[in-house]
Amino acid sequence: MEYHPGPGRNQLFVPGPVNVPEQVLRAMNRNNEDYRSPAMPTLSKSVLEDIKRIFKTTTATSFIIPTTGTGAWESALTNTLSPRDKILTFRLGQFSLLWVDQMQRLNFDVDVVDVEWGAGIDLSVLRAKLQSDTKHEIKAVCVVHNETATGVTNDLAGIRNVIDACQHPALFLVDGVSSICALDFRMDEWCIDVALTGSQKALSLPTGLGIVCASPKALEASKTAKSLRVFFDWNDYLRFYKMGTYWPYTPSSQLLYGLRAALDLIFEEGLDNVIERHSRYGHATRLAVEAWGLKNCTQKSEWFSNTVTAVVVPPHIDSTQVVRQAWKKYNLSLGLGLNKVAGKVFRIGHLGHLNELQLLGALAGVEMVLKDIGYPVELGSGVAAASAYLMRSTPLIKSRM
Amino acid sequence: MEYHPGPGRNQLFVPGPVNVPEQVLRAMNRNNEDYRSPAMPTLSKSVLEDIKRIFKTTTATSFIIPTTGTGAWESALTNTLSPRDKILTFRLGQFSLLWVDQMQRLNFDVDVVDVEWGAGIDLSVLRAKLQSDTKHEIKAVCVVHNETATGVTNDLAGIRNVIDACQHPALFLVDGVSSICALDFRMDEWCIDVALTGSQKALSLPTGLGIVCASPKALEASKTAKSLRVFFDWNDYLRFYKMGTYWPYTPSSQLLYGLRAALDLIFEEGLDNVIERHSRYGHATRLAVEAWGLKNCTQKSEWFSNTVTAVVVPPHIDSTQVVRQAWKKYNLSLGLGLNKVAGKVFRIGHLGHLNELQLLGALAGVEMVLKDIGYPVELGSGVAAASAYLMRSTPLIKSRM
Amino acid sequence: MEYHPGPGRNQLFVPGPVNVPEQVLRAMNRNNEDYRSPAMPTLSKSVLEDIKRIFKTTTATSFIIPTTGTGAWESALTNTLSPRDKILTFRLGQFSLLWVDQMQRLNFDVDVVDVEWGAGIDLSVLRAKLQSDTKHEIKAVCVVHNETATGVTNDLAGIRNVIDACQHPALFLVDGVSSICALDFRMDEWCIDVALTGSQKALSLPTGLGIVCASPKALEASKTAKSLRVFFDWNDYLRFYKMGTYWPYTPSSQLLYGLRAALDLIFEEGLDNVIERHSRYGHATRLAVEAWGLKNCTQKSEWFSNTVTAVVVPPHIDSTQVVRQAWKKYNLSLGLGLNKVAGKVFRIGHLGHLNELQLLGALAGVEMVLKDIGYPVELGSGVAAASAYLMRSTPLIKSRM
Amino acid sequence: MEYHPGPGRNQLFVPGPVNVPEQVLRAMNRNNEDYRSPAMPTLSKSVLEDIKRIFKTTTATSFIIPTTGTGAWESALTNTLSPRDKILTFRLGQFSLLWVDQMQRLNFDVDVVDVEWGAGIDLSVLRAKLQSDTKHEIKAVCVVHNETATGVTNDLAGIRNVIDACQHPALFLVDGVSSICALDFRMDEWCIDVALTGSQKALSLPTGLGIVCASPKALEASKTAKSLRVFFDWNDYLRFYKMGTYWPYTPSSQLLYGLRAALDLIFEEGLDNVIERHSRYGHATRLAVEAWGLKNCTQKSEWFSNTVTAVVVPPHIDSTQVVRQAWKKYNLSLGLGLNKVAGKVFRIGHLGHLNELQLLGALAGVEMVLKDIGYPVELGSGVAAASAYLMRSTPLIKSRM
Repeated sequence: MEYHPGPGRNQLFVPGPVNVPEQVLRAMNRNNEDYRSPAMPTLSKSVLEDIKRIFKTTTATSFIIPTTGTGAWESALTNTLSPRDKILTFRLGQFSLLWVDQMQRLNFDVDVVDVEWGAGIDLSVLRAKLQSDTKHEIKAVCVVHNETATGVTNDLAGIRNVIDACQHPALFLVDGVSSICALDFRMDEWCIDVALTGSQKALSLPTGLGIVCASPKALEASKTAKSLRVFFDWNDYLRFYKMGTYWPYTPSSQLLYGLRAALDLIFEEGLDNVIERHSRYGHATRLAVEAWGLKNCTQKSEWFSNTVTAVVVPPHIDSTQVVRQAWKKYNLSLGLGLNKVAGKVFRIGHLGHLNELQLLGALAGVEMVLKDIGYPVELGSGVAAASAYLMRSTPLIKSRM
Repeated sequence: MEYHPGPGRNQLFVPGPVNVPEQVLRAMNRNNEDYRSPAMPTLSKSVLEDIKRIFKTTTATSFIIPTTGTGAWESALTNTLSPRDKILTFRLGQFSLLWVDQMQRLNFDVDVVDVEWGAGIDLSVLRAKLQSDTKHEIKAVCVVHNETATGVTNDLAGIRNVIDACQHPALFLVDGVSSICALDFRMDEWCIDVALTGSQKALSLPTGLGIVCASPKALEASKTAKSLRVFFDWNDYLRFYKMGTYWPYTPSSQLLYGLRAALDLIFEEGLDNVIERHSRYGHATRLAVEAWGLKNCTQKSEWFSNTVTAVVVPPHIDSTQVVRQAWKKYNLSLGLGLNKVAGKVFRIGHLGHLNELQLLGALAGVEMVLKDIGYPVELGSGVAAASAYLMRSTPLIKSRM
Repeated sequence: MEYHPGPGRNQLFVPGPVNVPEQVLRAMNRNNEDYRSPAMPTLSKSVLEDIKRIFKTTTATSFIIPTTGTGAWESALTNTLSPRDKILTFRLGQFSLLWVDQMQRLNFDVDVVDVEWGAGIDLSVLRAKLQSDTKHEIKAVCVVHNETATGVTNDLAGIRNVIDACQHPALFLVDGVSSICALDFRMDEWCIDVALTGSQKALSLPTGLGIVCASPKALEASKTAKSLRVFFDWNDYLRFYKMGTYWPYTPSSQLLYGLRAALDLIFEEGLDNVIERHSRYGHATRLAVEAWGLKNCTQKSEWFSNTVTAVVVPPHIDSTQVVRQAWKKYNLSLGLGLNKVAGKVFRIGHLGHLNELQLLGALAGVEMVLKDIGYPVELGSGVAAASAYLMRSTPLIKSRM
Repeated sequence: MEYHPGPGRNQLFVPGPVNVPEQVLRAMNRNNEDYRSPAMPTLSKSVLEDIKRIFKTTTATSFIIPTTGTGAWESALTNTLSPRDKILTFRLGQFSLLWVDQMQRLNFDVDVVDVEWGAGIDLSVLRAKLQSDTKHEIKAVCVVHNETATGVTNDLAGIRNVIDACQHPALFLVDGVSSICALDFRMDEWCIDVALTGSQKALSLPTGLGIVCASPKALEASKTAKSLRVFFDWNDYLRFYKMGTYWPYTPSSQLLYGLRAALDLIFEEGLDNVIERHSRYGHATRLAVEAWGLKNCTQKSEWFSNTVTAVVVPPHIDSTQVVRQAWKKYNLSLGLGLNKVAGKVFRIGHLGHLNELQLLGALAGVEMVLKDIGYPVELGSGVAAASAYLMRSTPLIKSRM
């Protein structure tokens, strides 16, 4: 059954869920399995180990939780912190907003720095906050690496430098939902204590896995953290890791096989090539937006995101119309503007299993949609700008050289 | 990739996860979708409504949560109760034990009635407990309908009668993980306040959906329940239900399409026919066990389970050997004995998308395994007993009459 | 396993095999079935009947043969003609050439009219041939509706008019491999005696079904046709049609279920809308070619094909390089120039389950490839021309209005 | 869509098409590909080479033809023989009958030795025929290795010995449709000139591939064979083999990937283990038939087939009823009696991707069906006999030891 089918492939350019490669669909096309059979630990161990390579960590412990990014947030917070613990964080878009909301509902003492939507974290504000915290009451600095609502990528290395410079012992918790496996991310090098992502983002799987890596320091913190957690308790996992059976409750074997296939694809392409590829897509999309005479919601180039571009429409245009028309006429799925930027921006997700021509097709679609609804774009202008850049920068496909 | 492959189909006779019908695999074989597109509410609404028919409720509100049964438990408890609230419950096997453990970790005041593993809930104990609770301190009676570890089905109608007879206002929360959609279950008629199941059980889907139905009384209770919950908070769902977009965080579109297909299959067969079919499998399996001269772990026929049979092996035999040999030689997956009954019982799951001949093949396998490891079973005896009964009781397939 | 994998979806723009819709992949994702069970005739009858709607015939008899287009050709010829029978036909590209080759090897007396590659059938030549055949020695006029090698669509209605005007009794056999279900095709109205296609073309299935429709006149001819045929003998089918079991030898149930799904998709969109959609793709592609300053291999607009465009490259460029570079750098599959036009043309297939943005992505790819290999195309020019037209002509998606 | 669905897996025990392993379904779950891309020869070469291992030949040339077994027959005959050539063959069931029919329609001079249905080829008759053919007019001896209609396996080694003993130069053509990859088959050792099978039999793929191997002598014969063939002409293949592109017309990439997966599975298990496994199934099934007090259609044990057992029902029973009831009540697909043995036998196919418990489930089903329709079988008797044997003979699964 299909609801509202259209001809051809749906052009899926929301910033997640993203296109699932055929290889992953194939891997998941299977009956259920007894998760207590000897086959499952072989698979489980392989993905629990290999997922760490995506986070660029060799020291962390990985958890694959049957949940979404929202659950992964809760896992990160409740395992490392106690109620009333002070968290320093930044609200700069809908997803950091939602995380803040979760922190508050979980009874942490949240020091929220509000940042204009479209801007990234100001390191000097962070420095000031940490320097003034002489008693080290801040227990954690929580950062959304890539704010999916505004297309803003924060500077994690810079944040780590500030924390270090301030000699502040706070844990460093990072939401890497729309960044890990697509943007430059180095858990160990940047001393991130908890990093997390979801399966339906750059890993290009269906929704269903919250993937969390915890540094030794985070694991240590979990021993004294008093936040109530049961479903999200790392200890349950650790107990089963020791037994070699891995799962405190039934995993989805389909998603684990899918994850295995997704990791294989990424390693085959090369993780750094994958990241480089996303950088090309970000760059190309921004060139198209510029060619259309539109503004990027992201205020400075240092924060430009290579996984999603939020495009600001002129005041007389409702960005919701862009998204609706794209879907109704061209089978193109774009991201809506959310909350503060509802009606003002639409978003082009360009992450996951994707290639240049898919992106250019989507950009051609956006051009037509803009013109359809009355914005005087020159058709072909964005595609021309993007393809001039892509032509120069795209390497031959490794396996086909 | 396959780990430890064997010839032919795996005979999946654990009490979940169960066989996924081809129709469901097909429905799930698809790319990700934008869950904010107009296609998704059409689908979401249809499954949220139709899932209630499986619970036999028209008054409850349904929640489809990206989690497992363990998460569904947590959802049921935290949305309806406050810390320190008194829960009356019964520990009669590994799954009720785990639920009790969760209740305790969630800081409820748990009055646990320990029942011998293999027995069901004694209604007179329940009555005594409720009658003596004149101050109505017991806020909830929590019952595992079908204890998967011992193959014990509790009498929910009887429990409701006792609660009513005592005029006790406690909420009635039921774990229907290995019962709903396979055993007689009547949420409205039995005034159950929260009932829950998981997708990988009788619904015959992959793991990933915790399905929870809440009565109006439960929803009312949720307004004052003080237990901390964020990921599992029903309010987030209810807010999105009102908006008509349904999901507070990204759902798995694959699982929703799979659920749609699973429900279609069940309605096509007829829910009562499905339940009747499971009753045949339970009966047939017990006849086989009897023919083998082995004891059913379930102590009285009133508690016999039609979804899983726990078989007691003689003292000199290790039931783990039965399970291991079945997998290694016959590609047959049986359930281990857990915790108190480890080594003492093995379990035959007979639920979900299954037919008579699959069951008889498994029973033939169990016979050979038993003989393989030294138990003097007469080969064919169990199959003969089971098939004599099945031959008489199996109707023609509806669509083929 | 994947050979030479690349990131993202392969852009499949060869003129067949074409993209298989997810709905069809799902329908085919199934175990084998007993083709003698009562389920199979239900399915078989439904597709044998409904396939006629694609041919626009109510009077013909349909055959679904486990073979390719080449086998369907042989079926058409050997069932209607006798050795030494005179065939009048036209050689205007690689596929008509191959059919002629088959005719000759099958020992027919083939009167081949050679046409310059890039041109279509000259009706005056046809008229002259038929008029001079006063003894009616020509038993069949064989025409490739759409010559896939050069992108030339012949005028079937015109051909029928000439035959009628000449009052010539010859059978009219048509290869509709790259036309049926994409171009205007009217079997009954144009009195076509045998028409055929293959599953992997506009029907958007995998290869494996040769689909043949035979008019009553063709069936009558088959009674006296002396060409030797066994595997391709229509009589074997007709015998099984009468018995209601339909298949003289084992059919692929997967392909039959896939065909059912493909037909459902087409009827849902509306066959005439499908044809109209292909007309948009042909038009848009030609506008792009023009914008690039390149020549269409098709010499006159009356022969323009809406399923494939053969693009002539300048003399100093090797078109094989275009195809190779497209595949190696952009995961774009284009058609090679074949035989006489090898090295001189490359082909853009635009048929089957496809939409505007997929096409525009491919056109953007062709632009980059052309520039990559040294042709001075203005990037974006072709996309601009195509999208200006598509923007105006593309309707809202029916199911999403 | 499903026609006449029933609960649980269909028990597919016809002698083909057989169960497709999940691994093969997964491999086939993919979009179409450009068969002229560099990926396809890599795949094509690998399967064309490896398929020879299944035939146990290193000297033959393999052809993978988009057709069924019927087409493979035609390929074998028309490429090696000329019209009027004398063929010596044996008619001992429906499939050898159909092949004879094809030979006659192809205008060969067929010397048919009729053998009672249920018997195999009498080597002394063969010897007499060959010895009396002093002029070597017999150009080919054609043998169906395993007659699927009666469950008779002919002695190919014996036949080869007779041919050699007679120093007869005839070609030796073998239909291995229901034998190759399941029964002992040695193309090179037994000097078979053409051997053939179909994908939907022991290879456990969907229908669609006719697989033919031709010895050097057969290839040599093809140079002078005058039978008309076009679609089935080996030369077209050989020409493309030389070019390294392999396919004279569009192959099904899905089936080629499926074949790759099927071969991988077989090599992983070990071809000789696969053959040994089938021998167990044949033996076990015959023990069951004996236990039921029924007669095997196969008259002598030397001809017993390990891929299919034809069971003779008592005169007062209509075997069609057995098949019908099995399907209608137990979702069990059995083979009908065909032609001369219609109504008199039903057939249990036991080939392909299958295991012991699937077979025992089917045998249990047959018992119930027999009793259902009035034959006084002792329930469990066949299963007991079969499982006593299987228990002793079944090895541990290789990958699980």
